[in-house]
Amino acid sequence: MIVVVGKENPAYVAAAGALPVRFVSSLDGVDLGQVEAVIGHLPGELLAKAPRLRWVHSPAAGVDADLTPEMLASPVVLTSSAGNGGISLAEHSMLLMMMLNRDVPRWLRAQAEHRWDHYRHGELAGRTVGIYGLGNSGLDLALKAKAFHMRVLGVRRRPDQPSPNVDVLCELDQLLAESDFVVVTTPRTPSTAGVFGRDAFARMKPSAYFVCISRGGIADDDALLQALRSGQIAGAGLDAHGVEPLPPDSPFWSLPNVVVTPHNGATSDGTLRRSEQIVADNLGRFARGEPLRNVVDKAAGY
Amino acid sequence: MIVVVGKENPAYVAAAGALPVRFVSSLDGVDLGQVEAVIGHLPGELLAKAPRLRWVHSPAAGVDADLTPEMLASPVVLTSSAGNGGISLAEHSMLLMMMLNRDVPRWLRAQAEHRWDHYRHGELAGRTVGIYGLGNSGLDLALKAKAFHMRVLGVRRRPDQPSPNVDVLCELDQLLAESDFVVVTTPRTPSTAGVFGRDAFARMKPSAYFVCISRGGIADDDALLQALRSGQIAGAGLDAHGVEPLPPDSPFWSLPNVVVTPHNGATSDGTLRRSEQIVADNLGRFARGEPLRNVVDKAAGY
Repeated sequence: MIVVVGKENPAYVAAAGALPVRFVSSLDGVDLGQVEAVIGHLPGELLAKAPRLRWVHSPAAGVDADLTPEMLASPVVLTSSAGNGGISLAEHSMLLMMMLNRDVPRWLRAQAEHRWDHYRHGELAGRTVGIYGLGNSGLDLALKAKAFHMRVLGVRRRPDQPSPNVDVLCELDQLLAESDFVVVTTPRTPSTAGVFGRDAFARMKPSAYFVCISRGGIADDDALLQALRSGQIAGAGLDAHGVEPLPPDSPFWSLPNVVVTPHNGATSDGTLRRSEQIVADNLGRFARGEPLRNVVDKAAGY
Repeated sequence: MIVVVGKENPAYVAAAGALPVRFVSSLDGVDLGQVEAVIGHLPGELLAKAPRLRWVHSPAAGVDADLTPEMLASPVVLTSSAGNGGISLAEHSMLLMMMLNRDVPRWLRAQAEHRWDHYRHGELAGRTVGIYGLGNSGLDLALKAKAFHMRVLGVRRRPDQPSPNVDVLCELDQLLAESDFVVVTTPRTPSTAGVFGRDAFARMKPSAYFVCISRGGIADDDALLQALRSGQIAGAGLDAHGVEPLPPDSPFWSLPNVVVTPHNGATSDGTLRRSEQIVADNLGRFARGEPLRNVVDKAAGY
């Protein structure tokens, strides 16, 4: 028995073949005694109630919330939806970079006032983007940045993996020192949480922008606020935040050099379609007894 | 004698070699009797006062304002700054497309109100962009659009020229019928003026966006307004306008599905730098008696 948290989807039933699929709106009160697989977020305490469980598929690309202590201690295979939103997040990164580089809020203020506000702005061509994390989002961002005639630096955990469109694979220090735009695309894991603290912002150019499209908590929000307020960095484009939803009294909303979007960069029809393709593909693999894709490395955290 | 309208530039003096260069803030009152070349916009009536004039270089990429009746009737060579802003305008096109596709004004309104407004939006991947004009801007836009995983249609006057990154070179009818984004990048010439009229907008998809980054007047503003107000098209991103500056009472400012920027897409340091390179290069060619680059085809209008 496979339990899917979500609405009825004939493609999932077809992919599962002979295995029965049950769709539920929530796992609350569902008898997990016979369940072999869950497509959805599984609260840690439910693992003990599912003795036959072999596989959990998270609807998220980043599984920090799925890696409960119970899941970390369990042999159950966890797969993620990594890759569902990479293209959309790479688009969002380019959008935030251009909004900061050209000061889009200024144009929209002028439009609201019917005012012809002609000014000189930057362009991305010739600038350096430093991508912290070369997974699906980061690699697609590198492709786009090259088409924008940018220099691309990248930091990745596994430098032996192919990194097309990245001019220089480097350490974080070089990325911070040379980038005009630092873009965070990594999952939040024990080794990325808090990496962008006081010291990291101090190493960035005063003209540089910080962009985060993956997860909050990789930057230390207090250090980021201080860097933005003091002019240590030029500004930020933030889709992922330390606390979400960002509370109404968060200072990030009103800093003049910050663009805030509500963890919304990948919320597109394309992401939904790719998520469903990943689930259907994995359901077929599970039914046929084949290796699953997007298996999470529990030690690495993604 | 070469007259440059603009501030002193040692690179120009060096490029001109033995030819004397005079920098002026305006051509008003300047004795043109001995002048062989003008770098700057030359009002038509001054041509008769410059019997030794052989060359005029326009600071603009689009020379519609330089092709005065006197210039059209004269053997003087006109060169343009075409190519100075192409990269910057291609960036601006991508920015406007993403702003429309993701509804950036909605996010900025929410930010101003400290409101977490999470919604589903589009992505450019998989969409079709139709580029009307494959010059410097259009070809660089095609490169970027392919890195955004878009399908690229293009219309160009000289289909025999190479058009890399364009999936289909077509006629205007096909471009209008199939594009999710129609982007105007052509100069305004007798054969492009008014091409986007009532009929053209009627052929576009109701879900499609119109973007113009080159010149106003290629679209008929009344027809465009009607298409936007009636929902015949989904929206527009307009950097170039029929009347500039756009008057405060223009209805374009306040249409909810329109992003207005003040003919500002190429106003970047990069454009200025490339403009100066083009002038210096041409000054050197003129001094050495070599063929100039960016010579305007007066019959074609660019």
